[in-house]
Amino acid sequence: MSDKKVKWKNVIPEKDSYRSIFKWGDPKEFKNPKLGLYEHLKKTLGISEEEFSIVKNPGNNKVTCEVSIKLSEDHITAFKNIVGEENVNLDDYSRVKYSTGLTLFEQLNLREGIVEAVSDIIIHPRDKEDIRKIVNYCNDHEISIYVYGGGSSVTLGLTPVKGGVTIVMNTHMNKLIELNEKNQTCTVQAGMMGPDYEYQLNNANKLFKTFKKYTCGHFPQSFEYSTVGGWIVTLGAGQQSSYYGDIYDIVISQEYVTPAGTFKTKEYPAAATGPKINDIMKGSEGTFGVLVSATLKIFRYMPENNQNFAFIFPNWESSIDAVREISQSQFGFPSVFRISDPEETDLAFKLYGIEGTVIDKYIKRKGYKPGEKCLYLGRAEGEKGFTRNIKKNVKKICKRFNGMYITGFPLKAWEKGRYTDPYMREPLVDHGVLVDTLETSVTWDNLHKIHKTVRSFVKSKPHTICTSHASHFYPQGTNLYFIFMTKLEEMDNFKVFHRGIVDSIVECGGSISHHHGIGKIFAPWMKNHLGKEQLDVLIALKKHFDPKNIMNPGGTMGLDELR
Amino acid sequence: MSDKKVKWKNVIPEKDSYRSIFKWGDPKEFKNPKLGLYEHLKKTLGISEEEFSIVKNPGNNKVTCEVSIKLSEDHITAFKNIVGEENVNLDDYSRVKYSTGLTLFEQLNLREGIVEAVSDIIIHPRDKEDIRKIVNYCNDHEISIYVYGGGSSVTLGLTPVKGGVTIVMNTHMNKLIELNEKNQTCTVQAGMMGPDYEYQLNNANKLFKTFKKYTCGHFPQSFEYSTVGGWIVTLGAGQQSSYYGDIYDIVISQEYVTPAGTFKTKEYPAAATGPKINDIMKGSEGTFGVLVSATLKIFRYMPENNQNFAFIFPNWESSIDAVREISQSQFGFPSVFRISDPEETDLAFKLYGIEGTVIDKYIKRKGYKPGEKCLYLGRAEGEKGFTRNIKKNVKKICKRFNGMYITGFPLKAWEKGRYTDPYMREPLVDHGVLVDTLETSVTWDNLHKIHKTVRSFVKSKPHTICTSHASHFYPQGTNLYFIFMTKLEEMDNFKVFHRGIVDSIVECGGSISHHHGIGKIFAPWMKNHLGKEQLDVLIALKKHFDPKNIMNPGGTMGLDELR
Repeated sequence: MSDKKVKWKNVIPEKDSYRSIFKWGDPKEFKNPKLGLYEHLKKTLGISEEEFSIVKNPGNNKVTCEVSIKLSEDHITAFKNIVGEENVNLDDYSRVKYSTGLTLFEQLNLREGIVEAVSDIIIHPRDKEDIRKIVNYCNDHEISIYVYGGGSSVTLGLTPVKGGVTIVMNTHMNKLIELNEKNQTCTVQAGMMGPDYEYQLNNANKLFKTFKKYTCGHFPQSFEYSTVGGWIVTLGAGQQSSYYGDIYDIVISQEYVTPAGTFKTKEYPAAATGPKINDIMKGSEGTFGVLVSATLKIFRYMPENNQNFAFIFPNWESSIDAVREISQSQFGFPSVFRISDPEETDLAFKLYGIEGTVIDKYIKRKGYKPGEKCLYLGRAEGEKGFTRNIKKNVKKICKRFNGMYITGFPLKAWEKGRYTDPYMREPLVDHGVLVDTLETSVTWDNLHKIHKTVRSFVKSKPHTICTSHASHFYPQGTNLYFIFMTKLEEMDNFKVFHRGIVDSIVECGGSISHHHGIGKIFAPWMKNHLGKEQLDVLIALKKHFDPKNIMNPGGTMGLDELR
Repeated sequence: MSDKKVKWKNVIPEKDSYRSIFKWGDPKEFKNPKLGLYEHLKKTLGISEEEFSIVKNPGNNKVTCEVSIKLSEDHITAFKNIVGEENVNLDDYSRVKYSTGLTLFEQLNLREGIVEAVSDIIIHPRDKEDIRKIVNYCNDHEISIYVYGGGSSVTLGLTPVKGGVTIVMNTHMNKLIELNEKNQTCTVQAGMMGPDYEYQLNNANKLFKTFKKYTCGHFPQSFEYSTVGGWIVTLGAGQQSSYYGDIYDIVISQEYVTPAGTFKTKEYPAAATGPKINDIMKGSEGTFGVLVSATLKIFRYMPENNQNFAFIFPNWESSIDAVREISQSQFGFPSVFRISDPEETDLAFKLYGIEGTVIDKYIKRKGYKPGEKCLYLGRAEGEKGFTRNIKKNVKKICKRFNGMYITGFPLKAWEKGRYTDPYMREPLVDHGVLVDTLETSVTWDNLHKIHKTVRSFVKSKPHTICTSHASHFYPQGTNLYFIFMTKLEEMDNFKVFHRGIVDSIVECGGSISHHHGIGKIFAPWMKNHLGKEQLDVLIALKKHFDPKNIMNPGGTMGLDELR
């Protein structure tokens, strides 16, 4: 429909173009805003139909890289000797591609042909032994190492600000190593991609002759284009984390290659043998060493027991009271567990296609108002009686807080777009809409303060959209995920705006990140946020593992000087 | 009944005697083996009635300490100036009392008046500020600091092998600081004792005007005589941990005073801001610094929803198959969750008074045989429908594996003795029975190997009892807890025997400890167990926090040279 008004650029990016690097996901897949959303954006962001029709900097040029390779021929030869010539790239396109993540900053630069940081050489190791040799060689010669998993970092986590080597994990090191049905664990190489992992678990009965089928339980929005190793080193959280746990809870054991040696942590589900090395390594973002494999909890795959539900609440306060009660009532957690604030709820009705449906009309008739009402989506997973009991209790609690049951349809509608919404970023940016996200951890007693503060900061800029949801729940709190949109503007202005939002989150007591990690983008806040004493603990670990500072150097997590 | 045969020494220990130090728990409380157990011990351990009647080394002498105080008068004055004279002890009795934990080694020594390690001075800090001053002073003057919580260490964790200062946490720093009902957390000083903490939570509605009553969820066997801080720094697990989590899972945030500074970790339930400092500190056993307060998850207190159950299985293999299925079926975990092997089951029937009851007769009639049958005890806690669904599923699974439901009575019988069984150690040792325990973490696929290996090692010595249970469950595995008994013998022989059991655990792949910690007793196994690379990580942290090695020095966790 909206195609009548806007010419969305649904064209497969040209080979070797900048666009082929920054476009999200499958080159042949596209998603454009529906008409209602388009109209809403135009109106709210103050973009005229004429402005909207112009496509700015689509990034169709062929990639060139002006940053010359600084590594000597001897070093390059050494790396070729380790992994074989066919597993080394020196061409401009590969260097830029594997040096780039998914921040909006990077996309805006690439659209103008600007590459701020690029590796000298791209290496595709074949196995752990290759990585051991690369790390030892780089340590001996003080060459920086960056690790590229699936490339979906939104924190400049993989950005090779000091040049050197980028190793790519998902080319060869993408295999399932062992499924241990007795222990209900699976060991995989760090470069394994989400969908392949989940496919093998779902079909384990056929592929590995297991008694049951399994699921990995970890489904971040980046699921289709991220690696298991990436999930772990950045402390990701999946969209079903409230039941399955964050990746932090799912990882049983990890194997690392570091300048200080190679080791695999123990696989016990619990032990009292001092601080847990497994936990010390999680979230280290490539600054201590390279994660080569991991053993993870797996879960029985029982979609037949799923119970979907959705509720509409009269306002944000009552909806938060309800989800807190659900989180603290001790009947287990729903897996999908999402509450949207009023601005996001109104947008979601457009995005999910609920607007104008029978449900929408019913909601209106019952007096739930736009700008006030809040949408709560959920699904229970697990054993049959367990999921039924969750749904029963959720219904009871929602009713108590004036929530109205609106069937499982909105959950299904959300589910359809769960991995494809990121496809909308490119067409929006093409047409002059700046869209970005920030997220934070909150305790229950601080949720409203953070929500209000961030919203009022974003809204202090005219013509902005600021939607929020909470989607990862714990008895002690949740997260807040902010999506903000404005009219596209100068990079410097955007940077000031972005910084201001993070400032306002941190100042009122949110964490710098709930599940995106720190990378280089949030590093400047680390010292103030954690305090010197606690950042010093991470720096001490960094110095132990990587005394020459070759692992992801240049400011990652605030562990060395910023770029 | 058994009093007719044995004169158990149910006498309150004399004031200032060694016995008053090593006797477990309330000085006025006693527990003696029932007649059936007594007969079983005599027969199995090969102890004649005459031998049994002799009480050896009851430890009634008044404590004297031959180890002179090595701290200078200036230092002692400095400590008196910090905490006040009334909070410093220099007398022999205090020095020995607060230098002693609960290993059998220590008890056997004290019975002979032998004190191997003793602090120069005992200090009772009043608050965090006192501790900060003590730590700074000790760091400046390189004086060793040991921390005494409740004194229930079974790992020589608090043993002041280098002399110096012992600070006692449970004298003043034993208060509840804040109950945050919204976040469902509670902040307490590290020296708070278990029962006081639980009492305040159970009565929170009256004491703090909360809407609900709460429970701490952590009930180790030492509950009545251990501190919250002690639970955390040794990585304890309570008897209801399968539902509430180990203390590792319960602690949200901690505040430490270390030579490298004072800090409190963040209270978010989750965040992606690098490796979690909260987790790095857990289980540090006083080697990094002094834990002064902690914020813990609390849980709704809903005993009215409890569902108790017990089953009898034909053999160990079928019972393990059943509890693994229960742990992996995704309907939630029972809280109490205990399976005893055949030898322990037979002993438990005597200990809990099931022997000879209607239940016992029924079990026999149904063909479950002594030496083969296994007892499974459980309780579900939480929301009503949740606990009912657990019991329903447990019943179904147990039936599938030939388990027979035998009512909730055995759980109740076990519960009665859950905190009092340790009272039996003194009367047993009095009469020549050596009783000690060791425990380990196991993955499901290694459980039977470890169980068999340890049993056959213990049984290779004639006249031994070796009972085992698993009592902390996870989808990926459980723990094995071994209780072994022999006739009392020379200390050197006992040490060889003890070492042999640990060797056999570690050699076949168990962890050195599941929930007792490492202390100084298990430190010699750390390097082999974790591997040099991983122990080096803990040593690096130790050096960061405590560069002068004043915190619990002398081999704790293998972080410095062994005593």
